Amino acid sequence: MNRPAYLLPAGEPPFVDRHYPKAAELLVGWDGVETLKGPTLIGVPISKPSISHSGASFTPAVVRKLFHSYSSYALDGEVDLRNSESLYDAGDIYMHATDIKESYLRIEKAVVSLVKENKDCLPMFIGGDHSITYSTIKALSISKNGKIGIIQFDAHHDLRNTEDGGPTNGTPFRRLLEGGVIEGENLVQIGIRNYSNSSHYHQYAKEQAITVYTMSDVKNSGILNIMKESIRFLKEKVDHIYISIDIDVLDQAFAPGCPAIGPGGMTSDQLLEAILLAGKEKTVCGLDIVEIDPTMDFRDMTSRVAVHCVLEFLRGRSCL
Amino acid sequence: MNRPAYLLPAGEPPFVDRHYPKAAELLVGWDGVETLKGPTLIGVPISKPSISHSGASFTPAVVRKLFHSYSSYALDGEVDLRNSESLYDAGDIYMHATDIKESYLRIEKAVVSLVKENKDCLPMFIGGDHSITYSTIKALSISKNGKIGIIQFDAHHDLRNTEDGGPTNGTPFRRLLEGGVIEGENLVQIGIRNYSNSSHYHQYAKEQAITVYTMSDVKNSGILNIMKESIRFLKEKVDHIYISIDIDVLDQAFAPGCPAIGPGGMTSDQLLEAILLAGKEKTVCGLDIVEIDPTMDFRDMTSRVAVHCVLEFLRGRSCL
Amino acid sequence: MNRPAYLLPAGEPPFVDRHYPKAAELLVGWDGVETLKGPTLIGVPISKPSISHSGASFTPAVVRKLFHSYSSYALDGEVDLRNSESLYDAGDIYMHATDIKESYLRIEKAVVSLVKENKDCLPMFIGGDHSITYSTIKALSISKNGKIGIIQFDAHHDLRNTEDGGPTNGTPFRRLLEGGVIEGENLVQIGIRNYSNSSHYHQYAKEQAITVYTMSDVKNSGILNIMKESIRFLKEKVDHIYISIDIDVLDQAFAPGCPAIGPGGMTSDQLLEAILLAGKEKTVCGLDIVEIDPTMDFRDMTSRVAVHCVLEFLRGRSCL
Amino acid sequence: MNRPAYLLPAGEPPFVDRHYPKAAELLVGWDGVETLKGPTLIGVPISKPSISHSGASFTPAVVRKLFHSYSSYALDGEVDLRNSESLYDAGDIYMHATDIKESYLRIEKAVVSLVKENKDCLPMFIGGDHSITYSTIKALSISKNGKIGIIQFDAHHDLRNTEDGGPTNGTPFRRLLEGGVIEGENLVQIGIRNYSNSSHYHQYAKEQAITVYTMSDVKNSGILNIMKESIRFLKEKVDHIYISIDIDVLDQAFAPGCPAIGPGGMTSDQLLEAILLAGKEKTVCGLDIVEIDPTMDFRDMTSRVAVHCVLEFLRGRSCL
Amino acid sequence: MNRPAYLLPAGEPPFVDRHYPKAAELLVGWDGVETLKGPTLIGVPISKPSISHSGASFTPAVVRKLFHSYSSYALDGEVDLRNSESLYDAGDIYMHATDIKESYLRIEKAVVSLVKENKDCLPMFIGGDHSITYSTIKALSISKNGKIGIIQFDAHHDLRNTEDGGPTNGTPFRRLLEGGVIEGENLVQIGIRNYSNSSHYHQYAKEQAITVYTMSDVKNSGILNIMKESIRFLKEKVDHIYISIDIDVLDQAFAPGCPAIGPGGMTSDQLLEAILLAGKEKTVCGLDIVEIDPTMDFRDMTSRVAVHCVLEFLRGRSCL
Amino acid sequence: MNRPAYLLPAGEPPFVDRHYPKAAELLVGWDGVETLKGPTLIGVPISKPSISHSGASFTPAVVRKLFHSYSSYALDGEVDLRNSESLYDAGDIYMHATDIKESYLRIEKAVVSLVKENKDCLPMFIGGDHSITYSTIKALSISKNGKIGIIQFDAHHDLRNTEDGGPTNGTPFRRLLEGGVIEGENLVQIGIRNYSNSSHYHQYAKEQAITVYTMSDVKNSGILNIMKESIRFLKEKVDHIYISIDIDVLDQAFAPGCPAIGPGGMTSDQLLEAILLAGKEKTVCGLDIVEIDPTMDFRDMTSRVAVHCVLEFLRGRSCL
Ligand SMILES: [Ca+2]
Ligand SMILES: [Ca+2]
Ligand SMILES: [Ca+2]
Ligand SMILES: [Ca+2]
Ligand SMILES: [Ca+2]
Ligand SMILES: [Ca+2]
Ligand SMILES: [Ca+2]
Ligand SMILES: [Ca+2]
Ligand SMILES: [Ca+2]
Ligand SMILES: [Ca+2]
Ligand SMILES: [Ca+2]
Ligand SMILES: [Ca+2]
Repeated sequence: MNRPAYLLPAGEPPFVDRHYPKAAELLVGWDGVETLKGPTLIGVPISKPSISHSGASFTPAVVRKLFHSYSSYALDGEVDLRNSESLYDAGDIYMHATDIKESYLRIEKAVVSLVKENKDCLPMFIGGDHSITYSTIKALSISKNGKIGIIQFDAHHDLRNTEDGGPTNGTPFRRLLEGGVIEGENLVQIGIRNYSNSSHYHQYAKEQAITVYTMSDVKNSGILNIMKESIRFLKEKVDHIYISIDIDVLDQAFAPGCPAIGPGGMTSDQLLEAILLAGKEKTVCGLDIVEIDPTMDFRDMTSRVAVHCVLEFLRGRSCL
Repeated sequence: MNRPAYLLPAGEPPFVDRHYPKAAELLVGWDGVETLKGPTLIGVPISKPSISHSGASFTPAVVRKLFHSYSSYALDGEVDLRNSESLYDAGDIYMHATDIKESYLRIEKAVVSLVKENKDCLPMFIGGDHSITYSTIKALSISKNGKIGIIQFDAHHDLRNTEDGGPTNGTPFRRLLEGGVIEGENLVQIGIRNYSNSSHYHQYAKEQAITVYTMSDVKNSGILNIMKESIRFLKEKVDHIYISIDIDVLDQAFAPGCPAIGPGGMTSDQLLEAILLAGKEKTVCGLDIVEIDPTMDFRDMTSRVAVHCVLEFLRGRSCL
Repeated sequence: MNRPAYLLPAGEPPFVDRHYPKAAELLVGWDGVETLKGPTLIGVPISKPSISHSGASFTPAVVRKLFHSYSSYALDGEVDLRNSESLYDAGDIYMHATDIKESYLRIEKAVVSLVKENKDCLPMFIGGDHSITYSTIKALSISKNGKIGIIQFDAHHDLRNTEDGGPTNGTPFRRLLEGGVIEGENLVQIGIRNYSNSSHYHQYAKEQAITVYTMSDVKNSGILNIMKESIRFLKEKVDHIYISIDIDVLDQAFAPGCPAIGPGGMTSDQLLEAILLAGKEKTVCGLDIVEIDPTMDFRDMTSRVAVHCVLEFLRGRSCL
Repeated sequence: MNRPAYLLPAGEPPFVDRHYPKAAELLVGWDGVETLKGPTLIGVPISKPSISHSGASFTPAVVRKLFHSYSSYALDGEVDLRNSESLYDAGDIYMHATDIKESYLRIEKAVVSLVKENKDCLPMFIGGDHSITYSTIKALSISKNGKIGIIQFDAHHDLRNTEDGGPTNGTPFRRLLEGGVIEGENLVQIGIRNYSNSSHYHQYAKEQAITVYTMSDVKNSGILNIMKESIRFLKEKVDHIYISIDIDVLDQAFAPGCPAIGPGGMTSDQLLEAILLAGKEKTVCGLDIVEIDPTMDFRDMTSRVAVHCVLEFLRGRSCL
Repeated sequence: MNRPAYLLPAGEPPFVDRHYPKAAELLVGWDGVETLKGPTLIGVPISKPSISHSGASFTPAVVRKLFHSYSSYALDGEVDLRNSESLYDAGDIYMHATDIKESYLRIEKAVVSLVKENKDCLPMFIGGDHSITYSTIKALSISKNGKIGIIQFDAHHDLRNTEDGGPTNGTPFRRLLEGGVIEGENLVQIGIRNYSNSSHYHQYAKEQAITVYTMSDVKNSGILNIMKESIRFLKEKVDHIYISIDIDVLDQAFAPGCPAIGPGGMTSDQLLEAILLAGKEKTVCGLDIVEIDPTMDFRDMTSRVAVHCVLEFLRGRSCL
Repeated sequence: MNRPAYLLPAGEPPFVDRHYPKAAELLVGWDGVETLKGPTLIGVPISKPSISHSGASFTPAVVRKLFHSYSSYALDGEVDLRNSESLYDAGDIYMHATDIKESYLRIEKAVVSLVKENKDCLPMFIGGDHSITYSTIKALSISKNGKIGIIQFDAHHDLRNTEDGGPTNGTPFRRLLEGGVIEGENLVQIGIRNYSNSSHYHQYAKEQAITVYTMSDVKNSGILNIMKESIRFLKEKVDHIYISIDIDVLDQAFAPGCPAIGPGGMTSDQLLEAILLAGKEKTVCGLDIVEIDPTMDFRDMTSRVAVHCVLEFLRGRSCL
């Protein structure tokens, strides 16, 4: 027989407007064979390493769902992202239920394997908590030639010692430094906030020659100036730039759904402007968005910002 | 290349136990071609006809998702439903955004087409609100030979006049009677409740020779006795029995997620016992579960009862 | 001009079925002049005396709103309450914002005034917390001839000393006894629960010759037997019976919206059966329903039980 | 008898300060006879036409309730709105439960009838979803002489085709254009946002000569400049200006309770400044506020903005 | 100086009734030196091993807080638990943030150390998820002489293989069996439920000679009979009985706050009756309550049941 | 014996990083004997005087808990507050359950007693609702020499008459003026908002020579300029400045958890800048933060702002 009219397979959207492409249409499910080029979404659904209770492992699924809530079109510049590069969806890393170090190894191995065989793929990792960034950058450092610099948006340094709890979400950049994967002078931290860090780790950051822009710097200098300066600074020293977006860099009014919320952070407009600029920078080799906990959010507001980060990054690239 | 180890396509479950089959595995996505035999899930995602605000259109997706939260195995009788009939998933009816009557026609046409070409298919409709039942039974009456009798679990008669709001979720059985699709003497209503109906419609039910078991009857006689009596009574008069489960037949403590909640209803145990019995009855030709609103529920408790209704019905059939 | 068709004054229901009378229609707004006969709703919106944080002052408005969610018709006995006595709505007592004793005086004065001038009025107080019951019974004792006995449904004795916090919601029956308004032997407490009372106050209850039925008694003897026994017992000794329903007598599964929830209480069915019986008792001179906090409830489940208590009481009276 | 002291009719506020007039006192309930002059509130409680699930039909009641949470007095200019024009409350349009087109006709007929007989009435429609705007403007175009221009605050064009779902909340301005009720050059859209529209409909807007101010324009030029420019531009071409406020023009941080939320929108301050200016413009003949869903909101924050829009508009008019 | 009147140290209760001892007063904080005798509360705040997302690690703190919401007095038998044994609070096991196996070792070591030096201490573990039970029973088996039998209340067998995720909360009894810590014939499982287990593991249970009482058994035989039978059966074979209470043995209406909720479980009354009986049994050497997730609960309803389990167990012991 | 390794007393944090001091470590529990110097936290847990329902009495406990969520270190100026003055925690005032005036007396007496005996103590009161401010300032006026001036951050004047409800949270500054405790010319109000006050009380403010900065003033002049001007102005006339922070001075997007929310208020950044400045002012003799209701908040966002107010004030003082 034929499928009866109006009886659609489960999972189809409940309403379709023929002239309104959803951002979800940008997502090209990867068949595991085709060579990946350009931006590639990779879910990294892990939050058990978090110091505080976190459901960040639910974010990749929520972000994918929210691609159905927005279109592929930006009025600014009249860009339909469908006309730009494909955005591949490579799927999610399968995590171990009780062995966190094994989970990290799986991230690392999968990314090394992927990037080695798909040289032009630009992974966009959707966490998960921030602990994943050690593994994603480690993997890129293995599979890419040249030095990697990092622009980290975060309220926190994430330079905690690893003796007091192992490789938690407070430690990724410490581990990268201690593991020799990156050098402190190639790490730029933007949005670091009062009462969210300690003197000891701030000192460590300075000793490691990390460039730190606090929220006061952001208020005084403007996010675009800081971003341009950071890119210029890094490009002189590294071959690739990695963007790490801890969404708690935002003020709690704009991102109520991350574990460590508080006042005094960026607006979402500021972050999105910065990411658009990052998209325009060719040396960017990877990006992650972490520390969103959909179980604590209000109406997925925080994941919606993440989707806009992805889209603005793609829009930036469409200008290349 | 090959897909890297541990990088799974999006949508895969985050944990798999090789010896623990999920109820979701029972669901066989229909390819639109294969001949459907036995129980067939059909989503009917419509709630705009509801008198009060309802998000019942979200239920089919929630029910499908919850099949991942339960297994296919019942200790009672040691039945693994994987060893019984297949449960096809035929998908969802695609509704019109603003034309409710058109949506009803789509339900009717799709079901007629499906059942005519798949004589042995037993549709299990997941609503949606109760207004769908006119269309589903109408469609079965067209596509099947013989008379249809109905066992309706409900706090309400659903026999409202259609002048005061058209074909709402308060009218399906009135429309079936007035449309000559069924006869009052072939309709059995179980669980009808005080302060949830009017004298006028109760009178109408009596005039139409409808068999009405109130909640007092359920408390006094026991649900199993009433169920057995109802099946015996109908089998003498009709060729097919249709089961319509308005989940608000349950007490609000057991089903907090339907629009019209209140005290004084059944326990979920009582309903599940009744449905198990229905599953054992060969003349059952269709079933619906309606009036669950996931947007008002607590932790999908009400949809979880719906999943158990489906599973207990299947278990009943496994005894045939 | 004339009001345009379909433009209705604000506050009208969004859907009307001509054959479906809402329970709200039972409520006759009192004009302040007409002589009140029979059941009369009086809101007592006070919760500041509560020991723990309580929004019980919101209950009268919620209960009135919920009368729109149910009908006036009971299938049991085929009673349309519109054909029975009127249910007057005398309005709400206006409370003082910061002077709790003044608020109590207002309750007392208003009720004395009302009942003195309306001898046949049967007040049904919607609290508010349980502290109101001192004032309502005091007022009835002033305005009525003869002794008053009380049947109190409650998990708690409410016999706390008044030195440790004054006239809180833990003290109404202590104050009634100490004030000589009632005698201990004319007080029956039903549903008193383990771990919700102290030895000291249990002893006090015994010293005062209060009749105490614990939840174990309810489980062992059945609520109807206890209720019949209580009425028989009181009728031999008093002229009037007052029913005080602290909704926390219910198990938390059936009444999640009161400040002091816990397991081990009654089902709503049990309470409603008892109230129906109370309605059939001519000597009942007043009733209150207290300790519902709509701000902590789930979908007004607890207030819905209150509405059913009112309706079942009225149904009982329709049999007189 | 007389009503006892402190026993007030149900519905009275629980606290009254003799020197603090509530904004609710501005609302004059219309008796259906008196001639309406000036601002007139009309509830349009419909949300079934919405593409996504919406409870916008609850907004009129919530907005009326919130008038009790604010005063009638603005410190800016020391204006007590009680000394300005009356704000009539003409009530709510009674909607059909299942026939959406009939509901639209009811809006249209009621408004035509009202405005024809009350020439000086300035309707302020509280939606409902945005689909109502076709009917309200159509009605004004019938009942008023001269051309109507529109200033629409919205994240979206609302110019979708009507074949893919009929007259949804995505289509009102398309229907007005196609129906010849308005002309594209007389429509100004402010706040249109990236990833919330498609290229196709943006092209359509340009073809129709619609004036589009994106959020980037708002950020670059300032809302007051855009607003002044828009009014000046329209006044040269039309006789009346209609203001349509889709509250999703606001950033999700400021209006979390509309169906289509996202980052990148206006602040509530910006919107209120614009509406104050609109109030000062004599040619304004009507206004609507739509797309608030109180069932998805947090503490009615979004409806509170709507109340402030109404009050600021009135304050603007007090300067006329 | 002296502390001013009415200025109390932070953390004191906001209201004290001199005659109403809180259950919290039963808790005697352990000084780490005193010899522990009798019931001893030990928090085991770990939930990272859970298969599904769980905040069970928050339960010990919530349970302690709720001891302030109940009294120490049971009307049944007129028992004030203050007059019985002390209930020591030994504190919480400090967990490793990222190394789950290390956390298990800490549980085991701490309990071995505690019980070895405090022979008469009866540990009552407040989980945490069910994975802790391997470690707690292992520790008891090391520190006690003689065989241990187990009565497990649970919807699930918890006999999953450990290859597919390591030592998750689905595996504790499998690990105990495979580790030779207990024997299958000394394990009694009560409340095992349909669609919450697989055929494979049910088979395994039978092969291991585990005694399984399903929910059907509970309904047919009564919980007290099953409980008595289980104790009698175990006492013939073992020296000590350990009680493991997975709160998901309850129906979702009675325990909405555990990760794996569903219909068809026990009532809280049934469980409490069983635990009272367990308290009366001298051979009981330990008890745990697990799988409560306060972050998913409604008003701590599920943790309230846990508190009542502890109190009823103590009451049982007061009869010894 | 010794406490087993890893078994910590209840209440210890679940994770400790040796190099990350929590802000909670700043809090030094007062032993009731030691002389208090400098900033001293005092909880004032009262909200029953509130005009609208309020759970502000829960705030002191929530604020203390949140000190565990932030560190003691500010990057700005590289200040570790541990190196500055101690922050004593003197505990909470014990309130009367039903006698509000008695509660006020307790506040007054406790503060007088405390400050008289600890001349150098700078009390920081955590409310509670705003009604406490009469008592705290009254107490300071008794125990300190010289005049007190006030900087009040608030959307409201709080100058209501006391006849219409007694000493509510709408009256503290009226009572201070009428009681002769302060003079109008020494009161500065910042952030007063449209539609949140009445003409009558605005007039009263002017008659009393109160300095009023509206939100329009804040937008036009900048919070820092207003703050500097206010301090300069007051210092010429008074000996001590008291800072009263009604958190509803913030826009609802930044402080969703106070009873009287609305649009049009300050950002949290603006408030924090002002408080930092206040900290730098030696004449400040006391401070309160009021009108936070944690029961209505989202993820304690509003209490988090309060914690930052405390920390920024301390940072300001570290510059003295
Ligand atoms: Ca961070
Ligand atoms: Ca981080
Ligand atoms: Ca129904
Ligand atoms: Ca129905
Ligand atoms: Ca009680
Ligand atoms: Ca009580
Ligand atoms: Ca729109
Ligand atoms: Ca829109
Ligand atoms: Ca278990
Ligand atoms: Ca379990
Ligand atoms: Ca204030
Ligand atoms: Ca205020």
